[in-house]
Amino acid sequence: MSGINMTRRGLIGAGGGAVAATLAAGMVPAAARIQAGTGARVAGQPMPDGVKLPATPPRPKRQDSVGFAIVGLGGYALNQMMPRFVDAERAHVAAIVSGNPDKLAKVGDAYGVPGDARYSYDRFDEIASDDRIDAIYIVLPTGLHADWAVRAFGAGKHVLCEKPMALSSADCERMIAAGRRANRKLMIAYRSHFEPFNVEAMKLMSQKAVGDIRLLRTEQSYRMGPTTPRENWRVSRALAGGGPLEDYGIYGLQSALYLTGEMPESISATTFRPTGDPRFAEIFAHVGSQWRFPSGAVAHLATSYDSAGTNFAHVRGTRGALIMDPATSYSGQKMRLEGREPRELNPGDPGVQFARQLDHFADAVRDNKPIRTPGEMGLRDTRLIEAIYAAAERGQTVRLAPDGRMRG
Amino acid sequence: MSGINMTRRGLIGAGGGAVAATLAAGMVPAAARIQAGTGARVAGQPMPDGVKLPATPPRPKRQDSVGFAIVGLGGYALNQMMPRFVDAERAHVAAIVSGNPDKLAKVGDAYGVPGDARYSYDRFDEIASDDRIDAIYIVLPTGLHADWAVRAFGAGKHVLCEKPMALSSADCERMIAAGRRANRKLMIAYRSHFEPFNVEAMKLMSQKAVGDIRLLRTEQSYRMGPTTPRENWRVSRALAGGGPLEDYGIYGLQSALYLTGEMPESISATTFRPTGDPRFAEIFAHVGSQWRFPSGAVAHLATSYDSAGTNFAHVRGTRGALIMDPATSYSGQKMRLEGREPRELNPGDPGVQFARQLDHFADAVRDNKPIRTPGEMGLRDTRLIEAIYAAAERGQTVRLAPDGRMRG
Repeated sequence: MSGINMTRRGLIGAGGGAVAATLAAGMVPAAARIQAGTGARVAGQPMPDGVKLPATPPRPKRQDSVGFAIVGLGGYALNQMMPRFVDAERAHVAAIVSGNPDKLAKVGDAYGVPGDARYSYDRFDEIASDDRIDAIYIVLPTGLHADWAVRAFGAGKHVLCEKPMALSSADCERMIAAGRRANRKLMIAYRSHFEPFNVEAMKLMSQKAVGDIRLLRTEQSYRMGPTTPRENWRVSRALAGGGPLEDYGIYGLQSALYLTGEMPESISATTFRPTGDPRFAEIFAHVGSQWRFPSGAVAHLATSYDSAGTNFAHVRGTRGALIMDPATSYSGQKMRLEGREPRELNPGDPGVQFARQLDHFADAVRDNKPIRTPGEMGLRDTRLIEAIYAAAERGQTVRLAPDGRMRG
Repeated sequence: MSGINMTRRGLIGAGGGAVAATLAAGMVPAAARIQAGTGARVAGQPMPDGVKLPATPPRPKRQDSVGFAIVGLGGYALNQMMPRFVDAERAHVAAIVSGNPDKLAKVGDAYGVPGDARYSYDRFDEIASDDRIDAIYIVLPTGLHADWAVRAFGAGKHVLCEKPMALSSADCERMIAAGRRANRKLMIAYRSHFEPFNVEAMKLMSQKAVGDIRLLRTEQSYRMGPTTPRENWRVSRALAGGGPLEDYGIYGLQSALYLTGEMPESISATTFRPTGDPRFAEIFAHVGSQWRFPSGAVAHLATSYDSAGTNFAHVRGTRGALIMDPATSYSGQKMRLEGREPRELNPGDPGVQFARQLDHFADAVRDNKPIRTPGEMGLRDTRLIEAIYAAAERGQTVRLAPDGRMRG
């Protein structure tokens, strides 16, 4: 992390930081460079195109509704997550944090956020004395998650953090420790755990709907348009890690775990980075891995920023198969059970995943309930990501302990 | 190979051999045990159920038609391959070799094979002086290929050998050397090289119809019914090798090579054998491998005898994808190109693959033309199979030379 300005303001604001300087020098053709891929988040540019702000500011539904400060007003926050607050029973947008005054004004007005609850990053620590804010929702580039989570815990707030949790297991451990010290909740926004298709798939697999699982395949890929690490945080190693695995591929990694209900005992892997392509100056274009589970099941995971768009999970067992394609979208999921009685499954609207995730977190905060996707899950997954890169680099099958730590 | 009777007669005949003894003792419920899986061949049992013999014996179409002795009258020979001889222009069944007199009689009559061209395994070497026989077509369990190929070359005949070529690269080299000494042709029956869908797929990939290939997935699996190594040669290590990889999985291995047009530079792999399952007393249930090509393309191959039936090849590139599912069947292939102009492709009847393969071999024999799928290809593939098992056993990524030999 050394050598980069760790604040979002540094990345995008009026002051220092290499990225900000780049932006100021006009090297980024503004909104045209905003990444349009799945799960895309903007790297601090102006308001993304096509954002639909609410016509009338939504209001909390319940007295005990949990007030969130949204940290980072990128495309994912503005287009996917914030609009879904209206569907939540017990969560509302209480504050926003951004380095862009124009965004603070426009988004603040649209969501009915009072002027004094529109925070710049400089003023972030003042949230400690703002009782309207119960929790922060971190929607920043991954490399910034740990520091802002620790600061939020320092301010006595609960933390809902976008996936992946952080770029190293050490950072994850730091976040967990800070949450424990502050006696505050930490949840990773693994939305698929709240999405009807994936929840149904977990249930079916635990009921052995395909028998014993033998082979699981996941694939998340799309072709990223021309860009550079200076223009797009997603291709910056310091902010995004190795690349597609941490971003889109995290969905496949998660699927492999919650569909099998197991942790892998070993992993082999391969990475690929084409030479001379500015998109892949710092990150991998492709990460593939092969996992072996204690049951004998094998998972083949692939994720790419340079391949035709896919988003699927296939599970094959001794008595049938489950085909999810698309598997983990915002909407439009499809799922089919193959075997003796093949059938299409449609367990509900995937769109509810955002609100359910918020309400789950709110219930945990208000009623002190356990969190389904806690920091420990994010840590576990980050360890697996580290194991995948280690296996690829060493050219060896890496053996894992049940908590995801590498054995040797 | 030590300790097992290397003749088919030994496996099935009236005399010695553990399997024959087992059969004689009535431990095999005869036809009921015949493996019904894809690519199935019988292990010397009586006539398989449902065999349709020709109503009238077919005759050679041309004077220079190549006369084949079919060695091994199992399900694949009787149900798939022999009936297709009528479609060939330049190949005909001239002789049959079997350890079962009843089969020799029934099949011989149906195919118009003269009584003195119906050979038992004991009499096999007499084919040397039988001018009606130009070549033998080996359709025996894999572990028997090498010895019978060498004997056929010793008798001065050309050899068309079912895939996989043999169970070790040493055996493959022995076969190639014997063919060279005898100045006779050796071809491996990789039928997909003569099947319109796969031929079209090779052409499309070489024309970069999906751009640069990034990810290739193949999967060949089915769930094998209850059986034991004594009942079914496919689950016997001495006759079948490691299991599904050599049998059904060889199609995926081949696809990965002819679709990318490359040899892998490294392979990691994993195998799985459930405990206490008689089907997997000697062989693996599952073999998965991950290949890295010099171009950066990655292939994920999986094959299983204990998973829901699949047979596909998916190729994803920088500009689209090619989906073949089923990919390498006897018939019923489907193929779809995804990308800017998605379309279903139907380049012709897959059923012609058998006759085209025969005619290709016949042309090579008669006109001394090069063979598209020579022994060297079978050797290359056997080396890759050895590398896959070595990678799985060592838990290491194995590096390969361009000829498929392991580097260290």
